[in-house]
Amino acid sequence: MAEFDPSTHPHRRFNPLTNEYILVSPHRTKRPWLGQTEASQPSNLPQYDPNCYLCPGNTRVGGQKNEVYEHTTVFENDFAAVLPPPGPIAPIVSHPLLTVEPVQGDCDVLCFHPRHDLTLARLEIEAIERIIEEWTRVYLKRGRQEGIKYVQIFENKGAMMGCSNPHPHGQVWSLSLIPMIPSVELSSLTRYASSEIPTSGAPRGPKGCPCLLCEYAHFELSVRMSEARIVVQNEHWLALVPWWATWPFEILRMSLFTQAVIGICSKFSKLFAVLPHNRHIPSIYHLTSAEKTSFAKILSQITRRYDNLFRCSFAYSMGIHQRPIPPSENFDSNGGEDEGDIAHLHLHFYPPLLRSATVRKFLVGFELMAEAQRDLTAEQAAKRLRECNDVHYLDRVE
Amino acid sequence: MAEFDPSTHPHRRFNPLTNEYILVSPHRTKRPWLGQTEASQPSNLPQYDPNCYLCPGNTRVGGQKNEVYEHTTVFENDFAAVLPPPGPIAPIVSHPLLTVEPVQGDCDVLCFHPRHDLTLARLEIEAIERIIEEWTRVYLKRGRQEGIKYVQIFENKGAMMGCSNPHPHGQVWSLSLIPMIPSVELSSLTRYASSEIPTSGAPRGPKGCPCLLCEYAHFELSVRMSEARIVVQNEHWLALVPWWATWPFEILRMSLFTQAVIGICSKFSKLFAVLPHNRHIPSIYHLTSAEKTSFAKILSQITRRYDNLFRCSFAYSMGIHQRPIPPSENFDSNGGEDEGDIAHLHLHFYPPLLRSATVRKFLVGFELMAEAQRDLTAEQAAKRLRECNDVHYLDRVE
Ligand SMILES: O=P(O)(O)O[C@H]1O[C@H](CO)[C@@H](O)[C@H](O)[C@H]1O
Ligand SMILES: O=P(O)(O)O[C@H]1O[C@H](CO)[C@@H](O)[C@H](O)[C@H]1O
Repeated sequence: MAEFDPSTHPHRRFNPLTNEYILVSPHRTKRPWLGQTEASQPSNLPQYDPNCYLCPGNTRVGGQKNEVYEHTTVFENDFAAVLPPPGPIAPIVSHPLLTVEPVQGDCDVLCFHPRHDLTLARLEIEAIERIIEEWTRVYLKRGRQEGIKYVQIFENKGAMMGCSNPHPHGQVWSLSLIPMIPSVELSSLTRYASSEIPTSGAPRGPKGCPCLLCEYAHFELSVRMSEARIVVQNEHWLALVPWWATWPFEILRMSLFTQAVIGICSKFSKLFAVLPHNRHIPSIYHLTSAEKTSFAKILSQITRRYDNLFRCSFAYSMGIHQRPIPPSENFDSNGGEDEGDIAHLHLHFYPPLLRSATVRKFLVGFELMAEAQRDLTAEQAAKRLRECNDVHYLDRVE
Repeated sequence: MAEFDPSTHPHRRFNPLTNEYILVSPHRTKRPWLGQTEASQPSNLPQYDPNCYLCPGNTRVGGQKNEVYEHTTVFENDFAAVLPPPGPIAPIVSHPLLTVEPVQGDCDVLCFHPRHDLTLARLEIEAIERIIEEWTRVYLKRGRQEGIKYVQIFENKGAMMGCSNPHPHGQVWSLSLIPMIPSVELSSLTRYASSEIPTSGAPRGPKGCPCLLCEYAHFELSVRMSEARIVVQNEHWLALVPWWATWPFEILRMSLFTQAVIGICSKFSKLFAVLPHNRHIPSIYHLTSAEKTSFAKILSQITRRYDNLFRCSFAYSMGIHQRPIPPSENFDSNGGEDEGDIAHLHLHFYPPLLRSATVRKFLVGFELMAEAQRDLTAEQAAKRLRECNDVHYLDRVE
């Protein structure tokens, strides 16, 4: 029997955050592609588009007029998926197999910048810092509202990902319940916290419990370069293609606050020496201002690399996972008074492109019926992204 | 507080097969769509295409020549996602958070018909019966192979669903393990089988245990017309938009073998009177020839309705869920000797179109990060499909 080689042998990996499996078929990108190709995102957008309902001063579909905003702006989604309370009375189910639960909440749209043509990949660090401030404000504002349990911040970028307007913007859906995926992740983190798994000097969660993501980040920093999954990192943050990635160039970005790794991880140790303390960070609200700046920097770095990979405006869905809203506005808790503190702030990026600016991965038949499947390994994807130029291709003189 | 109305109030439903939630926002289809539109599938394909690598007698990418097949044909996928044994030795993991398992197996391509231009929706019943026979043969052939634990039959139809060739075909991936989704469904069925849930006269699974899907089918037949989710049915089969559907016009098709419902379900009772016995059917191998004919008929009926809904060749991913391969080729077991017999044969159809032939539903940002979300209720979708003409629009003289 041959020795196992993850870059040639089909295999399966496990996602400990969502308890899902993923089938990896690393030899499969060799097949020719005769299927659908995607239209490229236009790269010559105007700075202001009079027909864009997100540009400053323009009128939206519902008739409301946008502010003449200068940095970022937030407004309620004119076609919200959930509506504010009071909701209807809870319905009576007619069979135990049919369950139903009313959901209330609010949907906000957050314009990243007045310029119609600038995505995260092309914004200044300072402009990204303002977006992070705005996310924090919305998180607090919605979280302080009666009945809100979870604030889901996300961005759909590119027509390929269902985005109907190239103007840089994201969304925030605040709900009266913890939606499924964050709730599953939270259970995984909680289970891990009470497990007997020996930890390796990684920072810990509230009350000194092991944190799955602190531990995972710690481990990834110790992996030798030839197998590395880290794409970029700075003094506070780490961006990597997780071991269990599904989307071809999926990225998990986590806050990483650890000094303890210095000993065993000489390769990167100087990067961590800047941070004099270990931290487990449940939510964006807990970020210090230096941590926010690093956050903005790594967001910029990774979106630039994405665009550079295939020299196009790279489509993705991105979302922030963090602590559910604590009971009674206990936003400052960070030591475990609230069980949601086991949450470890992180972002997911799910980009569909696989081979080029126009050929995407379709997660269809087998993937929908049986198990997610990918055609290149996480390590191969990380290497490709690491090798990308750090300067945006449109800003380069070549 | 208003009384709950599932057709106007946002709410959440639970999928007891996969343990997933789905957010339903029934008021949301009203929003204008300014995003990506899809190219229509060509409706004027030739009967034979000299450049198609699936047409009879043509040469494939790898150089192999197709048989001059007259009905259906099967060949090994030239770009298989898994490879036959022997696989590599099981690898050693470097951290408990990183798990890896080698996977072996075979990938087959099954051409439905020599005609390049005929999809399931336009084939004669007899031709569909031959496809069912071919599925059964592949299920048995692969299932009898050393080490195969699950045979996943599926079809990706339409460029929108990643299909690279309009020639009518499906795939069969046979694996050395039970993939995630069938495995989760199997656990749900097993849990239900040992639950104390009172059953209502529905047929039962092996050893007289309650079967989640027998029970669900039984319940759906009793629902009053104004809330019905059934689209079409015949003496053996039922096609419905499940209560917990995710995709706009998702369909769950199950084999339904029950006489007991006649008493309480007068509206449809005559349809069932033809079948004189209750049956719980674990796999396609267990179907009688009459049941296969009914299966072909309902497959034809539902694909025709799909095409008629927006007058286009309707894209979807479809898959068959059934019993995992029993140990030691015990294919005939049906009374519970094999624990996999709790499986209840059924098909899922996941079509992406939402509003028209060119506007699809994007399951993106919120859906990928938080929870699946749909814009019309299962009941509204079922009604639309029920109201579709039963004759294919291309075969109609208007
Ligand atoms: O095998 P095909 O048809 O070339 O490929 C299609 O179906 C496969 C199985 O669902 C997917 O993995 C591919 O992403 C998709 O493009
Ligand atoms: O709200 P938008 O951008 O119009 O819509 C987009 O994002 C939503 C949230 O992920 C999805 O439900 C929609 O299917 C998608 O088209």
